[in-house]
Amino acid sequence: MVKKIAIAGLGLIGGSFAKAIKQKTAHEVIGFDSSQDTLDRAFQDEAIDQKGNWNLLKETNILILALYPDSAIQFFKDALPYLSKKTLVVDLCGVKTYIFNQISPLCKENGLVYIGAHPMAGRECSGYASSLPDLFKGASFILTPGDNADTEAVNGLTELADELGFSQCIVTTPEHHDEMIAYTSQLAHVVSASYIKSPRAEFQNGYSAGSYKDMTRVAKLNETMWSELFLENASPLLREIDEMILHLTEYRNAIAKKDRPLLTRLLKDSRGRKEQFG
Amino acid sequence: MVKKIAIAGLGLIGGSFAKAIKQKTAHEVIGFDSSQDTLDRAFQDEAIDQKGNWNLLKETNILILALYPDSAIQFFKDALPYLSKKTLVVDLCGVKTYIFNQISPLCKENGLVYIGAHPMAGRECSGYASSLPDLFKGASFILTPGDNADTEAVNGLTELADELGFSQCIVTTPEHHDEMIAYTSQLAHVVSASYIKSPRAEFQNGYSAGSYKDMTRVAKLNETMWSELFLENASPLLREIDEMILHLTEYRNAIAKKDRPLLTRLLKDSRGRKEQFG
Repeated sequence: MVKKIAIAGLGLIGGSFAKAIKQKTAHEVIGFDSSQDTLDRAFQDEAIDQKGNWNLLKETNILILALYPDSAIQFFKDALPYLSKKTLVVDLCGVKTYIFNQISPLCKENGLVYIGAHPMAGRECSGYASSLPDLFKGASFILTPGDNADTEAVNGLTELADELGFSQCIVTTPEHHDEMIAYTSQLAHVVSASYIKSPRAEFQNGYSAGSYKDMTRVAKLNETMWSELFLENASPLLREIDEMILHLTEYRNAIAKKDRPLLTRLLKDSRGRKEQFG
Repeated sequence: MVKKIAIAGLGLIGGSFAKAIKQKTAHEVIGFDSSQDTLDRAFQDEAIDQKGNWNLLKETNILILALYPDSAIQFFKDALPYLSKKTLVVDLCGVKTYIFNQISPLCKENGLVYIGAHPMAGRECSGYASSLPDLFKGASFILTPGDNADTEAVNGLTELADELGFSQCIVTTPEHHDEMIAYTSQLAHVVSASYIKSPRAEFQNGYSAGSYKDMTRVAKLNETMWSELFLENASPLLREIDEMILHLTEYRNAIAKKDRPLLTRLLKDSRGRKEQFG
């Protein structure tokens, strides 16, 4: 069945969803964006079929919120009076508990179906101009279904994810998502942003290879988005930063003591963990 | 002029040098390795022309030490009585001051020419089986010439580096090399080895994307080599680890205080540094 899919926010993620849906499925895309310029470009690119307005929401089967969390919540509240019952509401924010707790009860009260979601894909650049139809190829799609999202709703979203190129969908709780993402993604950004602060960064050219590039790649981050995401997931993220400082200090002390057997043991354990856990 | 180049140690780096020299130049390679098996394989692969013995060193123009620092120094001392005057001695170790201070004076006393060197290339695996003729393609080659290495000697080595695919040679002091490498390479390995120690690493599958992969790639390290290299460059490395902990703590405190303006400012500064310094 051809569906009408409204996407709020045509940045890197929303724009990539729009392009992927248009290129890989028969569904219709209605685009919302605060920038008229972005809407015009997306329409020219045939990434959207129509520029959105509230009245178009009535016939929308799926509303995808691809905005920063606070803006996504605000957009959803504004859109609520216009949505038909049984509309599937999906947000694509990088934190889940914070947004789940605000959107899920409202969906339940209003007969809407809510599934929180997080596409594990990104680029170290942002905005519609960076969006790509193949951004999600091979990526994992994490789903945190609300109380009234039944198996049928989850299967429907999983099928769409398959069509868009995701390699797997993982269903979990918002809390488990957030503690995992604090580690796999948010900590990586904090570490990279810390790594680049050494006074030696200025002179790295000619003295660096792959490991420096890997460590600093995501330091080129969007500070507006990440400062919001970090604070909305502060507790799990603080735990990971503390864990990181603990292990750096362990290495620091082994090196300061020139304790080669201890240092070798610590490194061997790290290698073993990487080999085992991937 | 066709040169005879002896390579001591046919692991990832020495093996790649041997393969690159044989594939890209007319020079002759004499291989030394403690493993007879590795020597046999390298000879079969035509990565070396001859298996080494002390008597072959007399006619060697260049001796390349591609062993861990302490083994490189030992091999050099054992080889010293067999080397002809003006032989160019080059080590490829990842630390320079430690080895420079031991080899450079001996070279001077014995009429040999010494250039410390460090190819800024590697892989997260080791040994002859991992060596590649194109490992150095596009990489930087850092040179720390000894007192009696004149311009002609440095130019000769630079020409060879060009032939092997290096994109640039950088001439500097052992001390500057070491403080830069502590940051660009050694710290990256300590950070990666610390990152993988979180209890959440075990469950990362499905919850991770590029940034986790980048952060943990080099955790798969050779603990025997890196524990030696870290301790031979302890002071610059400790400075970088402390710097890293300082900035992680800065981020930690901004998040704990929920200070969005401060957090945004810190992140913006990191992004600016990455954009400016590369």
